[in-house]
Amino acid sequence: MMKAYKDMSKEELMTLKAELEKAYEDAKGKGLKLDMSRGKPSASQLDLCMPMMSILDTDSILNTAEGMDCRNYGILDGIPEAKELMAEIMGVKADNVIVCGNASLPIMYDTISRSMTHGVCGSTPWCKLDTIKFLCPAPGYDRHFAITEHFGIEMITIPMTEEGPDMDMVEQYVNNDAAVKGIWCVPKYSNPQGIVYSDRVVKRFAALKPAAEDFRIFWDNAYAIHDLYPDEEENLLDILSECEKAGNPDMVYEFASTSKVSFAGSGIAAVASSVKNLEFMKKSMTIQTIGYDKINQLRHVKYFKNLAGLKEQMKKHADIMRPKFEAVLSILERELGGLGIAEWISPKGGYFISFESMEGCAKAIVAKCKEAGVVMTGAGATYPYGKDPKDTNIRIAPSFPTPEEMAQAAELFVLCVKLVSVEKLLAA
Amino acid sequence: MMKAYKDMSKEELMTLKAELEKAYEDAKGKGLKLDMSRGKPSASQLDLCMPMMSILDTDSILNTAEGMDCRNYGILDGIPEAKELMAEIMGVKADNVIVCGNASLPIMYDTISRSMTHGVCGSTPWCKLDTIKFLCPAPGYDRHFAITEHFGIEMITIPMTEEGPDMDMVEQYVNNDAAVKGIWCVPKYSNPQGIVYSDRVVKRFAALKPAAEDFRIFWDNAYAIHDLYPDEEENLLDILSECEKAGNPDMVYEFASTSKVSFAGSGIAAVASSVKNLEFMKKSMTIQTIGYDKINQLRHVKYFKNLAGLKEQMKKHADIMRPKFEAVLSILERELGGLGIAEWISPKGGYFISFESMEGCAKAIVAKCKEAGVVMTGAGATYPYGKDPKDTNIRIAPSFPTPEEMAQAAELFVLCVKLVSVEKLLAA
Repeated sequence: MMKAYKDMSKEELMTLKAELEKAYEDAKGKGLKLDMSRGKPSASQLDLCMPMMSILDTDSILNTAEGMDCRNYGILDGIPEAKELMAEIMGVKADNVIVCGNASLPIMYDTISRSMTHGVCGSTPWCKLDTIKFLCPAPGYDRHFAITEHFGIEMITIPMTEEGPDMDMVEQYVNNDAAVKGIWCVPKYSNPQGIVYSDRVVKRFAALKPAAEDFRIFWDNAYAIHDLYPDEEENLLDILSECEKAGNPDMVYEFASTSKVSFAGSGIAAVASSVKNLEFMKKSMTIQTIGYDKINQLRHVKYFKNLAGLKEQMKKHADIMRPKFEAVLSILERELGGLGIAEWISPKGGYFISFESMEGCAKAIVAKCKEAGVVMTGAGATYPYGKDPKDTNIRIAPSFPTPEEMAQAAELFVLCVKLVSVEKLLAA
Repeated sequence: MMKAYKDMSKEELMTLKAELEKAYEDAKGKGLKLDMSRGKPSASQLDLCMPMMSILDTDSILNTAEGMDCRNYGILDGIPEAKELMAEIMGVKADNVIVCGNASLPIMYDTISRSMTHGVCGSTPWCKLDTIKFLCPAPGYDRHFAITEHFGIEMITIPMTEEGPDMDMVEQYVNNDAAVKGIWCVPKYSNPQGIVYSDRVVKRFAALKPAAEDFRIFWDNAYAIHDLYPDEEENLLDILSECEKAGNPDMVYEFASTSKVSFAGSGIAAVASSVKNLEFMKKSMTIQTIGYDKINQLRHVKYFKNLAGLKEQMKKHADIMRPKFEAVLSILERELGGLGIAEWISPKGGYFISFESMEGCAKAIVAKCKEAGVVMTGAGATYPYGKDPKDTNIRIAPSFPTPEEMAQAAELFVLCVKLVSVEKLLAA
């Protein structure tokens, strides 16, 4: 058992600091150049889908089952077979799905942009209102927060619990403040904590009584089938049917994509919602686009076929990802366990490990890593406005480096955590 | 020489009407089911590009020349080689290009949407202003007008001349009314007239002195390389360099795509503008998207290689399109020439033939065609708000049907034109 840093004398800490500083100088000398900043698939994951490149060939008939030529104009909301596939990923009905372009982020952006200029199903355009607020469970996904900030939407941080956002606080805001128009959620293997919203949390979401008729839940189900341990898959309740049961059929937009199933940036993405919401979205979409890339939709359908095909593929992804996650987690445990200077969560899926340092240390740790050649997601990025109030959260993205690189990066990371923590304790 | 209808006596017209009515009833009996409503490529054109389907195969290295893996996240504004290709189509420099997604319409929509919510390079967001006006040369492209209408932008019709929009009127509005923020242009083989803007017109555009600092020309160069007679290609001046020379470097956004080069809806699209404008666009794009489909960009680059490769392909398109255009034009000439009831333009490129009926006849002609199984673009669609003030313009889209179908459709069309014209003359 290691001695907790807080139990060390000043002398012990000074000695430790000198050792760590030397180790850090040595590490810098190695000239590392590693990137753990984004949830990027690794090359070996991308290699898995290379057969997709030739699944449509010169002789392929590129018609849908209904006989529509996917090479030509037509079909606004996705070919039927792609709707089926994306519906299966989300666990919803195909009638509730629009299949869009190469990633889900633009669907979310467009949904907010449309609400700004055209309102939601007949409500006042948000740009005509003085204040629009969004609830932001945090730590969360920086690109969500970037969208709301870009449109001048006020962001309110909601703490995360082990089973999802703090629902007391969510209910308090949503049910009483008509300026609250939305909430960002990553309900399964949340970014960055890997938390799966419990059934109780999902049911409380579905049972909200929003003060604003144009309040919507932005349910970014980015990691719906992204299990690290496919045999122990964690189940997430279907929010659409829960909302319907609770008398709130129009309260949610759900998003998903194959960005981390096939190719990042060349996948297909979809939104699921009530028919009423989809019809309203399509009124703008039919002006905005002549339709999305149906050939790529067909390519995905021919390759994956159905949910079973997708899950088979995801097992291969898991086989590549799992050792990297486990390498990081074992180094964290080995090097930081018992020191009382850090906490972290061992996720069962998704793309991240969420790490909590001592208060006021996260920025310094990330800076130290960078100085020695390991780029992490900027500290604070997981909070609205990029400001982590306690400066503790660091998002670790183990997917892109090789397992060897990942181990090197993790060793450097724990070294930086120790060094910054000692400095902090000595300065206290 | 046919006798002009206006020179016919009432009795002659009555006799003619009876003949035409009988012919029309016969035509209806044929049970035609043809669509000339949109500028859709035909199946044989789409077949031309089928080798693209397997140009990337299981063993392909999908890196850019600079070594970026196109299968993964990264690169917001298009892979360098795709920028080069799209720059060549537009006759601009690659530094002035952003390559986007599957079609150009969403780039135009997003550009206006962004101006509504975020202004233009620092100007007041348009949604905060009482009135925004766009100039709409007409007849023009219905989807342009649909975008401006969708955002509540007031549309002002500008008549077309043989060499482009009426520039006296354009200058009058742009240089004096600060509410005028934009103009829609299809400068080469304009939709629907097939007019190529003359050098003089382009230079007058470049020399505008807009009252509004956030006035922009929306230069939709959709048919940049879409010649029907490749050996007689009509040259269009490069608006970007003309604007730069005239001291208006930021005044234009140019759009282009491969929608009618490779696949409609599965091509690649681009915007060209000054670096200042592109930087402003990218500030939003980096929030909106994780980047566009780089694999499809690479697919296009590998297949077409360069402008010479594109032009070779476009010759094959022209070989398929030309007989259809010529079939329609010869039927128009044979059946309507000298009757004094219609005018039309013989285009050298693009996707349409623009037809002018007698005043107040276009809607009735299109309705009669539809009744007999031939769907045309809705009359009026080529004008802002779908309202052709004289009810004369009909857009003929000969690309999709086979030459035989096209001839059938054209025969029905001229019959409807004659019948409606006679009815009109008798009612006068």
